Amino acid sequence: MKTTASLHGIIPPMVTPLLSNTEIDEEGLIKLIEHIISGGVHGIFLLGTTGEAPHLSYELRKEFIKKACSVINKRVPVVVGITDTSITGSLEIAQTASDAGADAVVISAPYYVSISQQEMVEYLEYLVPQLPLPFMMYNMPSCTKLHMSVETVRKAKELGALGIKDSSGDLAYLYALMDEFKDSPDFSIIVGTELFIPETIINGGHGAVPGGANMFPRLFVDLYEASKKGDITRIAELREKIIQIDNKIYSISSEGSKYIKSIKCALSEMGICNNFVSMPFTPFGAEKQNEMKQNISEIDFLEINK
Amino acid sequence: MKTTASLHGIIPPMVTPLLSNTEIDEEGLIKLIEHIISGGVHGIFLLGTTGEAPHLSYELRKEFIKKACSVINKRVPVVVGITDTSITGSLEIAQTASDAGADAVVISAPYYVSISQQEMVEYLEYLVPQLPLPFMMYNMPSCTKLHMSVETVRKAKELGALGIKDSSGDLAYLYALMDEFKDSPDFSIIVGTELFIPETIINGGHGAVPGGANMFPRLFVDLYEASKKGDITRIAELREKIIQIDNKIYSISSEGSKYIKSIKCALSEMGICNNFVSMPFTPFGAEKQNEMKQNISEIDFLEINK
Amino acid sequence: MKTTASLHGIIPPMVTPLLSNTEIDEEGLIKLIEHIISGGVHGIFLLGTTGEAPHLSYELRKEFIKKACSVINKRVPVVVGITDTSITGSLEIAQTASDAGADAVVISAPYYVSISQQEMVEYLEYLVPQLPLPFMMYNMPSCTKLHMSVETVRKAKELGALGIKDSSGDLAYLYALMDEFKDSPDFSIIVGTELFIPETIINGGHGAVPGGANMFPRLFVDLYEASKKGDITRIAELREKIIQIDNKIYSISSEGSKYIKSIKCALSEMGICNNFVSMPFTPFGAEKQNEMKQNISEIDFLEINK
Amino acid sequence: MKTTASLHGIIPPMVTPLLSNTEIDEEGLIKLIEHIISGGVHGIFLLGTTGEAPHLSYELRKEFIKKACSVINKRVPVVVGITDTSITGSLEIAQTASDAGADAVVISAPYYVSISQQEMVEYLEYLVPQLPLPFMMYNMPSCTKLHMSVETVRKAKELGALGIKDSSGDLAYLYALMDEFKDSPDFSIIVGTELFIPETIINGGHGAVPGGANMFPRLFVDLYEASKKGDITRIAELREKIIQIDNKIYSISSEGSKYIKSIKCALSEMGICNNFVSMPFTPFGAEKQNEMKQNISEIDFLEINK
Repeated sequence: MKTTASLHGIIPPMVTPLLSNTEIDEEGLIKLIEHIISGGVHGIFLLGTTGEAPHLSYELRKEFIKKACSVINKRVPVVVGITDTSITGSLEIAQTASDAGADAVVISAPYYVSISQQEMVEYLEYLVPQLPLPFMMYNMPSCTKLHMSVETVRKAKELGALGIKDSSGDLAYLYALMDEFKDSPDFSIIVGTELFIPETIINGGHGAVPGGANMFPRLFVDLYEASKKGDITRIAELREKIIQIDNKIYSISSEGSKYIKSIKCALSEMGICNNFVSMPFTPFGAEKQNEMKQNISEIDFLEINK
Repeated sequence: MKTTASLHGIIPPMVTPLLSNTEIDEEGLIKLIEHIISGGVHGIFLLGTTGEAPHLSYELRKEFIKKACSVINKRVPVVVGITDTSITGSLEIAQTASDAGADAVVISAPYYVSISQQEMVEYLEYLVPQLPLPFMMYNMPSCTKLHMSVETVRKAKELGALGIKDSSGDLAYLYALMDEFKDSPDFSIIVGTELFIPETIINGGHGAVPGGANMFPRLFVDLYEASKKGDITRIAELREKIIQIDNKIYSISSEGSKYIKSIKCALSEMGICNNFVSMPFTPFGAEKQNEMKQNISEIDFLEINK
Repeated sequence: MKTTASLHGIIPPMVTPLLSNTEIDEEGLIKLIEHIISGGVHGIFLLGTTGEAPHLSYELRKEFIKKACSVINKRVPVVVGITDTSITGSLEIAQTASDAGADAVVISAPYYVSISQQEMVEYLEYLVPQLPLPFMMYNMPSCTKLHMSVETVRKAKELGALGIKDSSGDLAYLYALMDEFKDSPDFSIIVGTELFIPETIINGGHGAVPGGANMFPRLFVDLYEASKKGDITRIAELREKIIQIDNKIYSISSEGSKYIKSIKCALSEMGICNNFVSMPFTPFGAEKQNEMKQNISEIDFLEINK
Repeated sequence: MKTTASLHGIIPPMVTPLLSNTEIDEEGLIKLIEHIISGGVHGIFLLGTTGEAPHLSYELRKEFIKKACSVINKRVPVVVGITDTSITGSLEIAQTASDAGADAVVISAPYYVSISQQEMVEYLEYLVPQLPLPFMMYNMPSCTKLHMSVETVRKAKELGALGIKDSSGDLAYLYALMDEFKDSPDFSIIVGTELFIPETIINGGHGAVPGGANMFPRLFVDLYEASKKGDITRIAELREKIIQIDNKIYSISSEGSKYIKSIKCALSEMGICNNFVSMPFTPFGAEKQNEMKQNISEIDFLEINK
């Protein structure tokens, strides 16, 4: 991570394979990491929203970081989410990430009492000097209630941020970020919304953190490459598949937890890892599981190494 | 807590006096508890929103529960917030509360990924049987993004909930709760919005959890008593003072964190405890502190034991 | 309307009885006005939200004002809604109201493109000098998208407003208005939310504009009187009936149009006027109509003069 | 308009040049139409949001339709907004549009009382058979409070809609529309958000209704053409200019009325038409006008015929 724009390409927000609320699915973890890396991804993001970070105990999060970093073994850069309502907790996780050999940490807004833009900047001013690793920002207003202003992101950059992942779903905002930082090509603009990957890359963005890359890493890497080349025909072909993921996998539920639940259920159907979802959520029940089995069987671009 | 409607009256959501992000202001804690109890309150709520619970490490929360319960020493019932995104964390705090002699725990919705009404019920069905203490519900949509439906509250009651504290600021909802549970007089309806205390008590509610009772416990107890008697004249007098608290203390800030910051600042001006506010927030700066000093000096109903 | 606080008491927002999108139900109009006036109301509000004003052509609105004023015949004060996206339209309606002998007009925010607080004040500065009648303000954010700030209301008062009707459902806001204008007892604070009538009157408000008073004028007048006296026992009795109206009449639908549709349906079941609802809405279909018939039959406080 | 996908390309939502709240700026109207048509646009949309339709009296709207259609004189297709809270008003405007030789009408949701998806469909079922012209839908949730579901749009199509203009700013929704109607290439998908024009056209959409095309018709036509060709380099060049319009023109205000006010102010600075804005809004004051003058002078892609 020493070159400019070190954060780029497809960086899947990896799910956290679990056997229960307190146990990692170690076998699943290994299979999942191999599956993802074999797809050609450019990095892995541990303990983001899709990784259920806030739902796991610190102990489990730490254990997971160590195990995942050990399996990944520096084959790709690793970034680790440290977002937490407790700064003590964030710093503990950051230290573990550093000790385990991760490359950077990811910071979103503390998310219980609403935080203002100015308070967020003050928080970063206090937190950043204590971090043992470089950091990137993460805009996730649907979970944190803070839609980080471009000004806040600019201040984070001044404090050393490597880039920002935006999962607001607000493309006009993402375009405003790109416009703001167009003269800083080493500040990574990373999109979380799968459907906006070509838009992001074509207009100057650097990468994506697509939950779907847990299941289809190669597809997303191909889309990233096609987008970098501006190959509109190829983009259109791949885009059809992205839409299928939405229609066949994510749309099985309509709740805020749908990405977590559906990706884990699909990975389980694909034989990659356990479908257990940590409290406060639960895995899909039998009916939705059957629906998923059926839908998965209709997908003709499964990436399964047998 | 063995009689019906055990939760009632004024139950201040106590602030957590701190010297730093990791140290309790022990002297302040003692003074604050004595101040509150001498005001005649009917209970104390530890580690709610005003108590900055999600911002404190588990270690600090546990230490705080033990110290506070020890100082309170069963003089009034104690309820302890266990709301957390991690169920492991919630159970740890609940166990500590039980060991320390608290009377009940308080549960709001896990608050990172949005939880649906049905998911909330499933969460309770899993959590409640593992609790070492009775529990009450806490509706706090501005922080948790879940405005618990009357149906969800009804299911919580079926699972054993002692009552519900509502801090939605939505009086029509509170009235709907009262209507729903009017034949269950032992199910406590508790309001968090200070201005709605008379409305709540007159119409069948049982109590209030007013942040302002950290500073003015007697005032709120008086208001509760006047409301129970339906003494409209006395209510009107006391109401004027409640409005003054809003105008002179809370309105110094307009951020989501304003109650935490302003109550701690006021308590500090009143000589009761330190004004330190835990990250991700910070205490008021000099300017707002001076404004508070001035405003406090204009309040003629300060309750300070010299 | 020459005394101070001329606007007070129960001022029903009268529905507009219709036979079709272009025809008034004249017979129903007469019966409805007699029904309402015989209930002892203190005024009538024509062409508000419940009156479907924006859905009616100007021609129909003008015809309705003339007919209604003629039937009312100065027995109670009449206020007329002139809210419109077109200022030309507002002024035309105001002139008709004046010619027909109405006492005041009612102004809410123009409601297509969102208007800011400052733009609302500029609009009033331009509109008010051209009005042929006194005016009152109407805060209706769910329809207009503007929640008028206390500051905007203060400026409206400086421009001559007689008072404000608040239908935000936000009791804390209503209390803030009362606090702001407590030294101006002739500035009428009127509530639109039926459940908040006692709260409003007891704390210094002047009246209410309850849609339910189309059906139950006497009930609301009784509630107003009991509230003025601070008769808590009587208020509690009457409040039960207000809750029944909500449970048995309004709750038949959950759409934004539910008050219009359900009140017209109930009035039709009570034999008072036609149930036709103007486009873009339609009357309840057979199923909901039957539900209403059943529910109405269970209400034991119907006010029908046979 | 007899071929399939008749609605396509750049269709500016023309401002309504005014001298006052009741008078058309006839000279400005002629200059504006010539300016727009000379830019190569594919149609003109009269009386949309940017055209201040709801703020104008019916009389003025009718006069404007006649004058504008007469000047346009069939050189490009004309569509006319008939959105109104009164169906009588909508039908009157539609008849005038038909008589004046317009090609289609545009329908959004009636916008005072919130309308539900089902009510919107019922409204269309009643309205459409009475229309003298073909119609297209217009999704404008920020003004109407209804974000038309894909299902509602599908039903509108079954009733004969030619297409839909989406101004939600929600690109994921727009993509969902394109996916839904990908097998109906004659159903026009038109975007209102200027920044999303390439995204729309590249992914199967048909056109755009950009307010900025009042000022820069050729620029938007060029962007449309480049997007049709998938010419990524050219798109990137033109996109820079679209961003400049946002930064230099629209950003002068931050209110909901900003597009109306800033486009009229810019057109006035460009010598094309009067800057008068109808009530409830007002033209920019001197300060903002000067800012616009300065900003306009810095734009190097002005399209002015001298």
